[in-house]
Amino acid sequence: MPTDRDLKRGNKKLGSEIAMAVIKRLPIYQRYLSDLQKKEIERISSGELAAKIGITASQLRKDLSYFGNFGQQGYGYKVSDLLKEINKILGLDHNIYMVLIGAGNLGRAILSYPGFKERGFIFKATFDQKPIVIDSLASEGIEMRPISELKDYLADHQTDIGVITTPAASAQGVADILIAGGIKGIWNFAPVPLKAPEHVVVEHVHISESLLVLSYLLHHQD
Amino acid sequence: MPTDRDLKRGNKKLGSEIAMAVIKRLPIYQRYLSDLQKKEIERISSGELAAKIGITASQLRKDLSYFGNFGQQGYGYKVSDLLKEINKILGLDHNIYMVLIGAGNLGRAILSYPGFKERGFIFKATFDQKPIVIDSLASEGIEMRPISELKDYLADHQTDIGVITTPAASAQGVADILIAGGIKGIWNFAPVPLKAPEHVVVEHVHISESLLVLSYLLHHQD
Repeated sequence: MPTDRDLKRGNKKLGSEIAMAVIKRLPIYQRYLSDLQKKEIERISSGELAAKIGITASQLRKDLSYFGNFGQQGYGYKVSDLLKEINKILGLDHNIYMVLIGAGNLGRAILSYPGFKERGFIFKATFDQKPIVIDSLASEGIEMRPISELKDYLADHQTDIGVITTPAASAQGVADILIAGGIKGIWNFAPVPLKAPEHVVVEHVHISESLLVLSYLLHHQD
Repeated sequence: MPTDRDLKRGNKKLGSEIAMAVIKRLPIYQRYLSDLQKKEIERISSGELAAKIGITASQLRKDLSYFGNFGQQGYGYKVSDLLKEINKILGLDHNIYMVLIGAGNLGRAILSYPGFKERGFIFKATFDQKPIVIDSLASEGIEMRPISELKDYLADHQTDIGVITTPAASAQGVADILIAGGIKGIWNFAPVPLKAPEHVVVEHVHISESLLVLSYLLHHQD
């Protein structure tokens, strides 16, 4: 799925910066290694791991070499060690506190999407124009508040990431409140590009653009 | 957001195949051109269009050159013509019929996501383990059926894309029914890789992996 960040960074290695193509593979390594650990597999060769993922062993080794020396010739990788290192690289070695704005279907889907909590992503509060009590959220300890309280909430609670699942028309206004409140990362699902200062990372999930890529590939399949 | 397809194609130009990086920019061009057309802007230079998108004019011209000769030296692009060409390239010059399986929060969010219908993506039916009447869908003419009817539905209705918004555990079973039913494209939101034959295009939306990329970028921001 293309993001505005892809465009700006152009999937190239710029100076000492690590290519976005490499960064995007890290979560996939994380997923496969987590699966291996759940299956209590202790050790894997770079060839086996690469084959599972569908890349070459040399690509895998090259990707990992940006971050350090992992694995041993003839032994491969110790799954728990490599997972720990990748978690550290991804910033998953500590909790990441999140708020979500826009508790419609998409917002609720994200709040209940599996696998966030176990990776340390903790939703602390949800904001909506019309806050209602959602039992499943309340039981998880996720507060639901009116959006008018977002500014004060951010002043009182250290928050890392703001997730925007509002309609397009509200997204920039919400982003402005998040940025003024000191948020450093925005995960945007609203179908509109957001303006943000350089020091704020915006990861834009363009759902419809993913569908257009699928349409292209289908159309050019033959 | 990384997809399994990214990994396999590796964002490189393979032989005569057009690079995934180029393909992923097409929906972004489509979005900007649609916006321009809505604003009744008739003409735009490659420099202006590229600047809006955040790439260089030469990148834009190079991307478009894979598909034909568009625009004129000194005039730029006629918005309606270029949009029409890009729509054709993306397969949006005819309707694309879709079914969605898994009508939970995520499924309903996708069904009501803006901008699909105007691009020709038509949801014909929704399937769920526990089908319930959802007024907003019924008013759009989208039928809700039990999943046990999916196989027969596909035999009777020409369908281009199956959208999977089920839990991970059900996704492969649903994909198998779709594939056996002749579906050529699968848009998968379930957090699990799917097995599919070569002739079926699977576009995988890894929502949690997008969050991990954001986490990485935040962690390496300083």
